[in-house]
This record gives sequence, structure tokens and C-alpha cells, in this order.
Amino acid sequence: MSATTAAQHHDRPGQIMAGEMAEQPEVLRRILEEGAPRIREVAEAIAARQPRFVLLTARGTSDNAALYTKYLLEVRLGLPCGLTSMSTTTAYGAKPDLRDVLVITVSQSGGSPDLVASTRAAREAGAITLAVTNNADSPLAKVSEYHIDVLAGEEKALPATKTYTAELLALYLFVEGLDGGDGAAAKVLPDLARQILDRQEEVRTLAGRYRFAERMVLTSRGYGYPTAKEAALKLMETSYIPALSYSGADLLHGPLAMVDNVSPVIAIVTDGRGGEALQPVLERLRGRGADLVVIGTQAEVDKASAGFALPTDGVVEEVQPILEILPLQMLAYEVTIARGQDPDAPRALAKVTETH
Amino acid sequence: MSATTAAQHHDRPGQIMAGEMAEQPEVLRRILEEGAPRIREVAEAIAARQPRFVLLTARGTSDNAALYTKYLLEVRLGLPCGLTSMSTTTAYGAKPDLRDVLVITVSQSGGSPDLVASTRAAREAGAITLAVTNNADSPLAKVSEYHIDVLAGEEKALPATKTYTAELLALYLFVEGLDGGDGAAAKVLPDLARQILDRQEEVRTLAGRYRFAERMVLTSRGYGYPTAKEAALKLMETSYIPALSYSGADLLHGPLAMVDNVSPVIAIVTDGRGGEALQPVLERLRGRGADLVVIGTQAEVDKASAGFALPTDGVVEEVQPILEILPLQMLAYEVTIARGQDPDAPRALAKVTETH
Repeated sequence: MSATTAAQHHDRPGQIMAGEMAEQPEVLRRILEEGAPRIREVAEAIAARQPRFVLLTARGTSDNAALYTKYLLEVRLGLPCGLTSMSTTTAYGAKPDLRDVLVITVSQSGGSPDLVASTRAAREAGAITLAVTNNADSPLAKVSEYHIDVLAGEEKALPATKTYTAELLALYLFVEGLDGGDGAAAKVLPDLARQILDRQEEVRTLAGRYRFAERMVLTSRGYGYPTAKEAALKLMETSYIPALSYSGADLLHGPLAMVDNVSPVIAIVTDGRGGEALQPVLERLRGRGADLVVIGTQAEVDKASAGFALPTDGVVEEVQPILEILPLQMLAYEVTIARGQDPDAPRALAKVTETH
Repeated sequence: MSATTAAQHHDRPGQIMAGEMAEQPEVLRRILEEGAPRIREVAEAIAARQPRFVLLTARGTSDNAALYTKYLLEVRLGLPCGLTSMSTTTAYGAKPDLRDVLVITVSQSGGSPDLVASTRAAREAGAITLAVTNNADSPLAKVSEYHIDVLAGEEKALPATKTYTAELLALYLFVEGLDGGDGAAAKVLPDLARQILDRQEEVRTLAGRYRFAERMVLTSRGYGYPTAKEAALKLMETSYIPALSYSGADLLHGPLAMVDNVSPVIAIVTDGRGGEALQPVLERLRGRGADLVVIGTQAEVDKASAGFALPTDGVVEEVQPILEILPLQMLAYEVTIARGQDPDAPRALAKVTETH
């Protein structure tokens, strides 16, 4: 059953999530063709105002897109960044001095009241505010000075998939625009995403090893680290397997005690400097006999217990996270199906979370 | 067996960790009496340079002390803060513009090569650099313009306990100093810490409910959130139980699906605005029949399945994290003992982690 086929069978568990995963190549293409000019305009307007610092505000899946953006902004533009601790404003009434600060709020729905309140407060405190959402009519888009629409189309599944990759691409193009780039490195993504999504059968085989797992550990470094966090969230909210994510360096600081023969490890080995920086961690894991599954190049997969080889030859490292997450979304879906649960019906979740 | 007694029996599992936990009241007193004047001098020198933005750099336990400091700086001083993604400098060679930026690096040992490299790069990029360590002769202390010694005495146990509370108090006094305060709110801490540590028997009873737990969820909001993260790390590195920590708001965005009748929840309900902001999350958890253990006031404990009542009456919210973590350190210790493991001998950990 490919993802596309699943979407055509309306009585199947996970059909909504599968259908939205399958839309991703088309969404990426839409952003590149229809969204890019507007994203570039916004980037140029903001670049002209010369922000000195960036604060990124988000929750859940969008928080992982925010973390990806933090890496891009720090590495590409040397802009110091922070992730907002929202309760400082909403619970403690902090009044930060936000002159010269760009505040980017990322939210699929653009509807969470705390994100709206926090962004309004930031604008009143002098920040340049940018909302990145999948809903141009949302309260968050309206309260922000600038808005980027990620053009993913309505997302019905509770586990966010297409809005995540759409946020990553839109934010990549935004940072390219701030830096005077043309986003050309992203043009290969829709075709490569389609190739990956067509390999559902391989992912189903991988999923078999996690059917009875009681816990999982995900790790990466650099640009791949947000992928590890997002994959852990996806696995938890669909299959309920406790999935812990750590940067490779943090893993060595304590949680490694949990790994031996107990927790299988999934490593996202980005093809580039992030993957190089992860090598000592991979060696340590192999040396300890960990069950290690690698998402990365074929060469890295060959050194592990198993894996999924990504077609990243010639793809710049910065855009690889948009591909890396795809087999992991598919894995969350397949593990959940293998465990007899429905990825479309996570317990307890609502699509717009009403935290204040 | 009280913590003190354990330290006297050198053949007992966990004796080193228990001994260091028991030293905490004395360490807190030492910081207040011997460390405070120097911390104030450092704070005044840095305040005179008027930093506009703060970056906090740390790993593991110290990263949780850094997060506590982020809340303090944002709420008290309105200084926007970020936590450093270290690989942007060490793996990608980012050259951020750090004029007007205070970079605070927190590390028990002051010896991790990546922290030293990252701090050196920050100083070269124009940052004001401050190292907070438990070793005044460490490479990190030497490479930083300013240094605060947390005066905890040598820490031998692999799970950090006394250096965590020492870092919290030293950083609290530093922020007080930046803000022109005298740190008076901290004076009650040594006595209250002693009262809490004397209640080992209560914690042992609580530990019984986690002896066979396969996973745990910890949650809080505001100042208590770093406590939730640190408690999860402590539980994992001693007992190997997968312990997931979320801000209350993030918990509602997905991971709540994991809670029902499956994962026991520990909520840190700070006595103040953080605890107030957590109320909707607590109501949701109670409504779903979660096994909810509360670390907080007696009134909050009475509404939960069980808990540990903190003596926080009249204690300002900002310093409560220094007390909140104590029963959770004890819990990690007691759960590990109950599971027949040795808290002093976590698999795979080295005291100074050599990540680059």
C-alpha cells in the first residue's frame, strides 16, 4: 500500500495522514513556483531594517521548524538567535527591549491564543514581527507586521506532516532572501521528495523492528538535529512510543546510559558537516553494540544495523532536513499501523491548541 | 537510611551521590556567605557594559541551569536571551556578530573542549564572556573574561546534584546583582533545603510507585520548567527510565497522547505565576485520570494522586527551583535503589565529556 493508495481508501486507518504526506512534493513545488516571489519581498523588506538578533516563537512541530531556522540564521548570517520561552511574557508579563530584534512566530494554524498574545506584545515592544503560517486569515497573521503563507493547503491530520516541510522550505527561502540568495538549491526538492515517498515498502520493513519497542532514542547534529526532534514528536504522537531526541553531543552527557541493548537508536546523519560532527557519537554507539538505524547516505547506512539511504548526492546540506524527515514521517505512520493503532486518531489531541 | 548515613557506608550503592546531595545546604550557605561578594562585583562590572542580548551555552545538567537563567534574565531585566546551538560555531564555523552580547557558559568541570572553543570564538567575536564553573583553574574559566566559581567542592558522583543547585544559586545572585538587588530572598534556602533533605522516607514511599514504571512524563511551566527537565535527566541517567519533560503548554500539543493510563506524570507546580499557568494542564490531566504526582504546595499535593509538599510559604518564586529539584534528585536516587541498580555507576558516562 503506497501512501497515495492509502488516501484513496477512505476506510483505512491513517488515510488522512498518508494522503497529506503524499502531497508534500506538490506543496514544495507550489512554494517554489507561487510562494517564492512574495517570500523574497518580505525578506528584502526585513533585511533593509537590519535586525541584530532574532527570536523564534513556536510550539510542537513548528518549534522544530523554528530550530532549523535558528541554525540557518546563525550559520548563514551570523545573527544570534533565541527560542522564545513564551511564559516569560504570558505568565510573568516580561517587557523585553526588542529594538533591532526580529521576532519570527511559526504556527500551522496561526490560531493559538498564546502565540498571538506573545507576538502582539513583541510588536508593542519594538520588534519587527514576522508570522509564518498556513493560514493567511489567521489572528497570528493579522497581528504580525509581515506574513509568509506556507501554502500547504488545509491540514486535516492531527500529526502535522506537509505543514512541517512547507515551513522548512518557506523559512529556507526567507533566509536565502535575507542573504541575497536565489534559493536555487531547493529546486531539486520536489522530485527527490517524490522518490523518497515512493519507497514506502522499505520503510515498512524498517518499521517491523520497532513494532515491540518500548522506547527509542533519536540523535543527530547540526542541521539534522531539528529532524531528530521532529521525528521523535511524530513517533510519540502517533505510536505513543517514548521517543527521546538528543543532539549527539548531549547524548554523551548522560542519556547514553539508556542506550545499551535497551533503546534502539535512529541517527540522522546529514551529508555534510553535521554528519561529520556526529561521527564520534556513531563510533561510540557502534562500539557499544547499539541497534543503530541510520537515515543518511548509502555509505553511512552500510555501516549501521539498518537504515534508509537518502538521495542527497549534490544536495546542499542546508536543505537536506526537508528530505530527511520524510522517511521518518513514513516510519511513524508504519510503526503505528504495525502496532494496530490509527495514526489519524491520536488520543487527546486537538488541532489548534488553546493554551494561554 | 538517610542521605547522610548512606555517605558513611562506603560499600553501599549510591553512597557518593547520596553524600553529595546531603552537602547541598552547606554549599548553598557557602555561596551566600563566601561567594556572594565576588558574584556581585562581576555583576556590577557586566551591568556597566550594558549588554543588549544574552546567549547561554551549556550541556546536560548545566543546560538546565542555563534555562533557569534565561527565565530570570527575560522576566527580571527584559533582556532577550537565546540558548547556544554549539555546532553552529564548532561544526559550521559561524561567525556571529556578538557586539553588545553577553555570553554565559555554564559548566561544572569547565573542561569540555567544545565549550572552551565556543566561548573563545564568542570572545573573539566581540562578546562579553562569563564562565560559571565549579573549577576556577579550568580552561573555560581561563578563556572567559569573567568567571564565577560556584564553590560546590569536588563532585565525584556521575549524576550532578550539588553543582546544579550551586549553579542555580550563583546565577540567581548574578542576576540580582545585574538588577541592583541584594539577594536577600535566597537567605532562607540552606535551612529549607536541609528540611527537605531530611524527608528521605517520604521520597522512598513515592519511589515505590515508579519501581516498575516503563516511562515517565514530567511537566511544569515558567520557573519550574528547568526543574522538570533536570529531574527527567536525573531519572534517566540513574534509573534508565525514559523520562520525557515538556512545558505544560507543549504537553497539550501532542505528547499528551502518551499519558493516559500509561505514563505516570510528575508535575512541578511552582508556588506563583508558573503554577497558576499550569492549572489548565493539571485539570486536563486529572480529567483524563492520569497518575499525577505533584511537587508543590500542600494544597496542590492534596488535589493530586500523591506528591511531596514543599515549604515554599513566603519564598519568592524565582528561588523555588533551588528547592524543587531536591525531592526529585532524591526520587531518582530512591527509584534507582528500588530497581536494584547503583546510582553511582551509570553505564557509559564519563564525568568530563570530550565532545568537540
